[in-house]
Amino acid sequence: MKILLTVLFFSLSAFAQDAMLLSSNVQGAQYPQMTPDRRVTFRLRAADATKVQVRVELPKSVTLDMTKGDNGYWLVTTAPLPPGFWYYSVIVDGFTTLDPASKTYFGYGRECSGIEISGPDSIAAAALDVPHGTLRDVWYYSPSTKVWRRAKVYTPPGYEKQNNARFPVLYLQHGAGENETSWSNQGRETFIMDNLYSVRPEVRQMIIVNDNGIVPARNPAPATGGGRGSGRAMADNLFAEFGEILTTELIPYIDKNFRTIPDRDHRAFAGLSMGGAQAFRLGLAHLDTFAYLGAFSAAIGNLDLAKDYDGKLADPTTSQRLKLLWMGVGKQDSLHDGLLGVHQSLEKAGVKHVWVESEGGHVWGEWRGYLSQFASLLFQDTPAPKKR
Amino acid sequence: MKILLTVLFFSLSAFAQDAMLLSSNVQGAQYPQMTPDRRVTFRLRAADATKVQVRVELPKSVTLDMTKGDNGYWLVTTAPLPPGFWYYSVIVDGFTTLDPASKTYFGYGRECSGIEISGPDSIAAAALDVPHGTLRDVWYYSPSTKVWRRAKVYTPPGYEKQNNARFPVLYLQHGAGENETSWSNQGRETFIMDNLYSVRPEVRQMIIVNDNGIVPARNPAPATGGGRGSGRAMADNLFAEFGEILTTELIPYIDKNFRTIPDRDHRAFAGLSMGGAQAFRLGLAHLDTFAYLGAFSAAIGNLDLAKDYDGKLADPTTSQRLKLLWMGVGKQDSLHDGLLGVHQSLEKAGVKHVWVESEGGHVWGEWRGYLSQFASLLFQDTPAPKKR
Repeated sequence: MKILLTVLFFSLSAFAQDAMLLSSNVQGAQYPQMTPDRRVTFRLRAADATKVQVRVELPKSVTLDMTKGDNGYWLVTTAPLPPGFWYYSVIVDGFTTLDPASKTYFGYGRECSGIEISGPDSIAAAALDVPHGTLRDVWYYSPSTKVWRRAKVYTPPGYEKQNNARFPVLYLQHGAGENETSWSNQGRETFIMDNLYSVRPEVRQMIIVNDNGIVPARNPAPATGGGRGSGRAMADNLFAEFGEILTTELIPYIDKNFRTIPDRDHRAFAGLSMGGAQAFRLGLAHLDTFAYLGAFSAAIGNLDLAKDYDGKLADPTTSQRLKLLWMGVGKQDSLHDGLLGVHQSLEKAGVKHVWVESEGGHVWGEWRGYLSQFASLLFQDTPAPKKR
Repeated sequence: MKILLTVLFFSLSAFAQDAMLLSSNVQGAQYPQMTPDRRVTFRLRAADATKVQVRVELPKSVTLDMTKGDNGYWLVTTAPLPPGFWYYSVIVDGFTTLDPASKTYFGYGRECSGIEISGPDSIAAAALDVPHGTLRDVWYYSPSTKVWRRAKVYTPPGYEKQNNARFPVLYLQHGAGENETSWSNQGRETFIMDNLYSVRPEVRQMIIVNDNGIVPARNPAPATGGGRGSGRAMADNLFAEFGEILTTELIPYIDKNFRTIPDRDHRAFAGLSMGGAQAFRLGLAHLDTFAYLGAFSAAIGNLDLAKDYDGKLADPTTSQRLKLLWMGVGKQDSLHDGLLGVHQSLEKAGVKHVWVESEGGHVWGEWRGYLSQFASLLFQDTPAPKKR
């Protein structure tokens, strides 16, 4: 009992006045801590290390040296941080890795640490006292790649209650280095939608499906090395191979196993960054499948409307067929100027679209906001199922 | 292109002949690799470190020194490993953390790395070409702790197809340092059940619910330190507080939102290690709620049947009321002898129960096997819903 009390006292004394734990901490972790003015203190134990740093992926990445304290602990406190979700890494004597005190989020092609900094954006994405939908892991077989694949499926609060009602579907994709877990984990997609339905009942309840847009090279596979090879092979993977999975395997699975409205007028496709490039290319290639397209900070550059996407954007029937072509990007995003150029080309050519410029960068805080905005515009001509 | 080919060649040359990637690696990671005789090579980059180790939590924990190679990479290859799931950590200059190449698994009170070593046990837990159930994240409000809580709910393959059928429910709990994600992540509960139903159609399809058995002290909360304080407070937390959540909040939520058969004859409660202690104590305290109890490597020591659990085990009506009291433990488990003592006491007192001794230790490989065995015995007097 004496030892226990000592530990307790140390623990108490280590806390700054009014410090808060973060919701992104693992259960029981005493760090990271945040002050009311949003300064974050990181702590880790590396008794024999000579250099320890924390790198926080703010709109501009920041690397801070940690200072060695007692008992092998290293500490550092940031300047006040902007609200939002920020990936971070710790770097111990040249080893870039995770902070064991943080929940993990798949990003940058590996599991990452993250800090959720409360602010106006986070409230929209918090688990509030409203009706909640559910998130499912579903497994479906992919004949084209001969593996079982996992997708994440969010069904809205009304789905279980109204068990004869059918729902439209948004297919929503992550960015490069992320996967099918990213929209629910770091994107907080389920809470954003739950809160949106609660505050704005006119928003149409929809199913949201997240899949992995980077088709793995047979996984687990003989380790013959090499990865995906050339840029050409990478493009085939992101567009041709994923396009085949999406349109011939995933969508039929979802339409078979969920109460969807299985036609183009009740299907949207959107994605962020790399997923935005997929939304443009695959969406325009499959106008029979999707009537709504969304590109969040899309990784596309200047377009030649006459040539790119088989000239689909220059074809006036495209504008007639698409119920919504939505583009958003932050002013601090390095992709901003290229996307502004795309917007201007579309405007000049008379291609109907929605253009949103937000204040931030290439970060999850922006994409959370875009989801609310984009989803609010979807399926508005489809009557909601009657409440029972 | 030249740089790309160089990287490719290095990558090829680094692979041992016939090496396999592990399914526990993150997408795209080239290590850990496994040889056909199940030797695992770990690799990480820590250019400026002086001592780098890997600790693998085999039934007996093994720590291996890594050797510095070219370009700041450290490598080590294990002896042949037993099949199963093994947690591991990397230790870089005294910093115990995760390998960024591994998927993460919540264990030991933090996110951990893990290796999935193929073998007979893993086949039963693999994603095979059989009908798959789905796993849901559900959120429910807990009035007693004033937070929204997440539970994981597995519905069997028949649940969606037979949409008027009702199903019995197994409440299945994790061990200390784990949480509601552990049975589906490291336990591979969903695949075990999918495969079991496919091979043995006489096993009754059931819903499985995993909740967090360690009630968090208001999370996120003012960081006033202190944790859970005394052993008494810890016990209150694990038993009284979790028991209240389970019986008055979680079960009513599940019965309201899923097609359950909402009575004691169609409810089972089981857990591993700490969760096994919860199954004994809470199960015996709530015989009106549960008719089946399972304790997997339960963290309980010698029992005084007359006194412990309010004498419930010594009461002959308990045996009459329980349809199944199931206990399993591995011969290499440090809890084995204590549990053998419990089994002997129960036998001596004529308390009807099933006692299973397996060969392994206090590890997930055993618990996966126990789930199959235990689930096969549940709800056998309840007719399965008719196929449509």
